[in-house]
Amino acid sequence: MKERILAFQHLSPEQTEQLTSMGVDVIPADQWDTARDISIVFGWSTEHGLAVLQDPHNNVHWIQTVSAGVDYLPLDWITAHDIQLTNASGAFSAAIAESTIGYLLYFLRDFNEAVKNQAGHFWQRPLRSEMATLASQKVVIYGTGSIGQHIAELLNGFGNYPFGVNRSGHGVSGFQGTVAMKDDADLVKDADIIINAMPATPSTVHYFNTDFFDKLNGTRVFVNVGRGKSVDEQALMHALLYQKVLNAGLDVFETEPLPKDSKLWDYPNVLITPHQTGFAGAENIRAIFGYFKDNLASWTQDGKLTVNLTDPSRGY
Amino acid sequence: MKERILAFQHLSPEQTEQLTSMGVDVIPADQWDTARDISIVFGWSTEHGLAVLQDPHNNVHWIQTVSAGVDYLPLDWITAHDIQLTNASGAFSAAIAESTIGYLLYFLRDFNEAVKNQAGHFWQRPLRSEMATLASQKVVIYGTGSIGQHIAELLNGFGNYPFGVNRSGHGVSGFQGTVAMKDDADLVKDADIIINAMPATPSTVHYFNTDFFDKLNGTRVFVNVGRGKSVDEQALMHALLYQKVLNAGLDVFETEPLPKDSKLWDYPNVLITPHQTGFAGAENIRAIFGYFKDNLASWTQDGKLTVNLTDPSRGY
Repeated sequence: MKERILAFQHLSPEQTEQLTSMGVDVIPADQWDTARDISIVFGWSTEHGLAVLQDPHNNVHWIQTVSAGVDYLPLDWITAHDIQLTNASGAFSAAIAESTIGYLLYFLRDFNEAVKNQAGHFWQRPLRSEMATLASQKVVIYGTGSIGQHIAELLNGFGNYPFGVNRSGHGVSGFQGTVAMKDDADLVKDADIIINAMPATPSTVHYFNTDFFDKLNGTRVFVNVGRGKSVDEQALMHALLYQKVLNAGLDVFETEPLPKDSKLWDYPNVLITPHQTGFAGAENIRAIFGYFKDNLASWTQDGKLTVNLTDPSRGY
Repeated sequence: MKERILAFQHLSPEQTEQLTSMGVDVIPADQWDTARDISIVFGWSTEHGLAVLQDPHNNVHWIQTVSAGVDYLPLDWITAHDIQLTNASGAFSAAIAESTIGYLLYFLRDFNEAVKNQAGHFWQRPLRSEMATLASQKVVIYGTGSIGQHIAELLNGFGNYPFGVNRSGHGVSGFQGTVAMKDDADLVKDADIIINAMPATPSTVHYFNTDFFDKLNGTRVFVNVGRGKSVDEQALMHALLYQKVLNAGLDVFETEPLPKDSKLWDYPNVLITPHQTGFAGAENIRAIFGYFKDNLASWTQDGKLTVNLTDPSRGY
């Protein structure tokens, strides 16, 4: 039987044509509730996705997300029903890594002060002694997957060889060393820069809490480009206030959009971007569609998914 | 006779000790007008420097600046009196190159909008289609000396191979191609990013003028980390208004400090930093002092200056 793909992700006529030429049916998002025999879902709808999976007329056995994180999907249901799940890990890594370097330079090169001074037409040179190059900083990256590796690679270009933290402490290329999460205390106590690039899983929720920040001693920049839930925002604000952390670049938040009354907006040493670090226009879409086609080709040939297969029970 | 160094540049006791152990006298800045027989000047004073050179009690034959640019020195006088001039080129290049990448990411990764939205507690995601990676941009760098080469090197780490523009069009490593200044029209007409890293010389004054900007067609980011005099600011503002240039990151200006009533301060797509891109605290000072010591060693040995000898008649 022909595979029938429900595309929650918008497809161009050319993309639809490419897929149908591979011998599959493509159903546009707006027919989600009338279509029958859906076997593959491309993209997701938080509103209708679960209903599509649960509809007895369908038989979904594979979901391809257009995001790297999969924490917003009904993972328990997906696990219980043996649905395979592939994500878009890698499609955003280059852009996220670039943004991360951007946050670091924004604070290290004193743009944060410059922007405020510019508003008041105020020519105020920073203290030369307070500035440093990125090359000279001790960087620790949490998460050594696609995003963490891309960040490390860019740092290497600056002559900076970061440390990595992951679950087991296994070595990863581009890092001068890696430790397991449980052994990070010695590593972070004199870190100049700490970057979170971990997925959201039960073991990373509020990993960056008061206990964590108490280990620090004036970390110059803390960056979160992983998931908002990994950071206890109250604890971070406390750490900023007590100079455990001097500056923070944040792209993800416990609640998104960040509520209008969040005190984070007004911290003078925090740069807030609205969950956009991965954006890179056509570059993202080209990559994701490429992953999907590669998977579809192997799936229709021998029932295997070769790109970005996740373990829904683990959440990444 | 012992060399006698007037140090307009502040020296630590350790640094003074290092110099005197090389067999020279070191005179602190505040004794500029009472000291006699000064033969070497380290650093500069716009107020008193020329008087020291002209004082018949002195016999200055070498000036070591603590800056890369030398355009603020009395170059005619220095040329006419055969004084050798070494600069600090290279001491700031790493920091300037990092700042330059910072300007590019600030605009490419949409921080400029984010900063403004943050002030209003406004969660506004940019259009994904309008964002791009630095890797994908066509970059043209004016000036392929120490600073230009450092910028190219960092760009290479992003998978970006820039074009260079210099006087003769001679090739330089790290660049995918170079052209002579007079042949730049074809190169810049579709440039995404243009960076000025040229010294201030008669041939670079107002190089970036209306004629130049008219060649462009929506250059995403124009960066000036060279000298302020290279850019006709009126022409730049006009280019910004008519979207020949979409954004600008400026560290140097025609008049510094940038006058309080300059209209540049209020351009929403301009980032102004107060001539600070080269700042990197102890890293700068270590490098400059190293150059000076290397030169002093060769000078006292055989009268030669080996590091960063400039041609005062050319201005770099």
